[in-house]
Amino acid sequence: MWPESIPQAALAERRARLAKKFGGPALFMSGLARPRNYAANRFPFRAESHFLYFVGRPLEGAALVVRPDGSLLYAEPPDPEEALWTGPQPTLEELSRELGLEVRPMAELRLDEPTATLPSADVETAFVQSELVGRDIIAASGPELDGIDRALADAVIELRLIHDAAALVEMRAAAAVTERAHRAGMRATRPGLREAAVVAAMDAEIVAAGCVHAYLPIVTREGEVLHDERHHRTLVTGDLLLADVGAETPGGWASDVTRTWPVNGKYSGSQRALYEVVLAAQRAAIAAVRPAARYRDVHRIAGKELLAGLVALGLFKGDVEELYARGAAALFFPHGIGHLLGLDVHDMEDLGDRAGYAPGRERSRNFGDRYLRLDRDLAAGMVVTIEPGYYRIPYLLERPEEVGELEASLDRKVLAELADVRGIRIEDDVLVTATGAEVLTASIPKTPDDVEAAVRG
Amino acid sequence: MWPESIPQAALAERRARLAKKFGGPALFMSGLARPRNYAANRFPFRAESHFLYFVGRPLEGAALVVRPDGSLLYAEPPDPEEALWTGPQPTLEELSRELGLEVRPMAELRLDEPTATLPSADVETAFVQSELVGRDIIAASGPELDGIDRALADAVIELRLIHDAAALVEMRAAAAVTERAHRAGMRATRPGLREAAVVAAMDAEIVAAGCVHAYLPIVTREGEVLHDERHHRTLVTGDLLLADVGAETPGGWASDVTRTWPVNGKYSGSQRALYEVVLAAQRAAIAAVRPAARYRDVHRIAGKELLAGLVALGLFKGDVEELYARGAAALFFPHGIGHLLGLDVHDMEDLGDRAGYAPGRERSRNFGDRYLRLDRDLAAGMVVTIEPGYYRIPYLLERPEEVGELEASLDRKVLAELADVRGIRIEDDVLVTATGAEVLTASIPKTPDDVEAAVRG
Repeated sequence: MWPESIPQAALAERRARLAKKFGGPALFMSGLARPRNYAANRFPFRAESHFLYFVGRPLEGAALVVRPDGSLLYAEPPDPEEALWTGPQPTLEELSRELGLEVRPMAELRLDEPTATLPSADVETAFVQSELVGRDIIAASGPELDGIDRALADAVIELRLIHDAAALVEMRAAAAVTERAHRAGMRATRPGLREAAVVAAMDAEIVAAGCVHAYLPIVTREGEVLHDERHHRTLVTGDLLLADVGAETPGGWASDVTRTWPVNGKYSGSQRALYEVVLAAQRAAIAAVRPAARYRDVHRIAGKELLAGLVALGLFKGDVEELYARGAAALFFPHGIGHLLGLDVHDMEDLGDRAGYAPGRERSRNFGDRYLRLDRDLAAGMVVTIEPGYYRIPYLLERPEEVGELEASLDRKVLAELADVRGIRIEDDVLVTATGAEVLTASIPKTPDDVEAAVRG
Repeated sequence: MWPESIPQAALAERRARLAKKFGGPALFMSGLARPRNYAANRFPFRAESHFLYFVGRPLEGAALVVRPDGSLLYAEPPDPEEALWTGPQPTLEELSRELGLEVRPMAELRLDEPTATLPSADVETAFVQSELVGRDIIAASGPELDGIDRALADAVIELRLIHDAAALVEMRAAAAVTERAHRAGMRATRPGLREAAVVAAMDAEIVAAGCVHAYLPIVTREGEVLHDERHHRTLVTGDLLLADVGAETPGGWASDVTRTWPVNGKYSGSQRALYEVVLAAQRAAIAAVRPAARYRDVHRIAGKELLAGLVALGLFKGDVEELYARGAAALFFPHGIGHLLGLDVHDMEDLGDRAGYAPGRERSRNFGDRYLRLDRDLAAGMVVTIEPGYYRIPYLLERPEEVGELEASLDRKVLAELADVRGIRIEDDVLVTATGAEVLTASIPKTPDDVEAAVRG
């Protein structure tokens, strides 16, 4: 199944379903490799997710046109002079057989009727796209669509929200590689190493499997920095290491997993206590995942369970419901409980909140909820992450304007006793099933005992 | 020295030298992180090389203005709301102390006099750059400069061609990490593994050192494909594995090294024979590197030495000089002997051949020489790669129009006997010294015996 694996029939089915839903012609660009420091020194090419969804293969500089009477792929014919550098490339005929899709030279692509499209992420591709559809397409303008493009976005979202069997095969493969990466990271961790050494061990599993990182890895002893992408610090005994690392398959499907483990292989008492609190919140949230459950409620359930744990530890005094209403959970857990997962780690985030928020729902302005990326009623076939955390964030805790009236309910002495925890996050990828939920990443060590054992090797 | 290491004084000296050479104000943009599949999922940020040369630190969205009366750096002040995600960022005052350079908010950047600049690689940055200088700057248009921008390019090239001590510290560090990567790759290689497993082992060394790849790694059993960037094939006994992999330091300085090793730890007779031919060509080329030597002559020396070896093996019949004149070397070695190396793996290639070709010199249209990226008289302080190869390229050897009259001099029977060699390249990074050359990557196993020993572990 490696390196390309999505069956032709599944791709054909996706295209046919879109054509039926949407009706008119729709254009999907695959994009171009981005230059790094000069034109010929490029980042690895990553095709646009909508294109991958319908074509399954990361062809550069290609375009798919889906029409009710059939789909056509347009691609650059192989350049004989390039063969010296790239080796023999498939002809368009060979590509056509491989993809089960008629393929024509890119130069023949003409769109004679109004054609909907979704804005490309990069300016160069959006420029080509604009020429093709005969109107200005602004790069990365997916959050502000109207007209036929908005209708196309809605049709694509409806499809991509509910994963088909082929997508789940890919996501399970991504989860399996991610498991190897996390186990390797745990095993490689010891005091005295740099964070980068753990990244390297995790990286090696992902690269050896022919995958890439679905997002820039976060592997940090400063777990309270939510998106810390540097790895230069040295690990010391007593640290927790937070690793948010997920593989992406060659077909582009993502996983997204966080574990937090003790650098020396043993959680301290306070670390274990808080880890158990976060784990209980995660379990409560996962238990709430089922068809028709509203995701915002899953977020609330996690927040309240977290808060109940913090009250039990004495960090907060008071009634959980009342504390939650006053924003206490967000003081230690300021982000959302999770997001959609698919071809993008925040699936379809190129379309803004249109994918994550059901029609009529919008983001709260409330601090604890504003970063919630998803508020839909769940349905079988959706995959979401569930990722509660506890973070001791100076920016929040040391500023009276952030703590506000919660100060009276917060026990600073207990907080001081918990000082060896900077950040804990526990994140899994969860498939909504017909009757409940299946954790796709369940085999990655998660209980404190299992994690300790994996770190000790 | 990690993760930032270029001394303030060296950077100040570079800026002062540019100001003296160029006179007028010059603007250098640092660039922006490029989106991968959606805006917030980005490739790792890589600052533009000219900016790195003068500032030493990969600040995103910053701009440097160099003027005879002093340089000013403009950067985005830290956004308090971002602190939640990125942790506390240095204030502009702290940045200023760290860099030894006055730093002002980006919003204050106004250029009231005509200001030269070098085109950014990405469209978004070129757009900001255009606004700042008040005229259109086309992204990646470095090869077609005129006016003050061309004069600035010439001044920058003059500086960057001759590496200062701080640059050499970085390049030696890159070489040391690259050595670890190649040794790890050799050690990890065995029949039955995928190419990706070897990439993973090399990668791990680079990542653990806090470095990145200076270019997309080429690790392939199909060594005749010059820029093969896929790694999905399985290695089998009898294969050679060609690995072209180089580390880039956090400061942006590159190394670029190729080794070709036997998958099972032992070269066959034909493999060893051809390896020795390529190695002799490389040694002859390195021996020719010295101040005032013309690089095109180094290329010719390598080609002729390679050809002499092929004649000795019986692959060609005839006189070496005469065969060389007829293009025989290029049939098996179609690329150039190397290129400039520095902050870019093809240093300053964003400026086209202006950096690689001395004024008045231009690329040959001749097949064997058209890919030569450098034709300057060498000078102490330059770093170049020396990378001859032998490739059995079906695209060349199986097409009568490519082989032409050389067919009469080529012994196809001998070629058949050498069939277990698809591609061999041996590449080192070479510093031109006052009296000759120093191989910066000399400690990476290179003789057949040393390579076999490293593969066997």
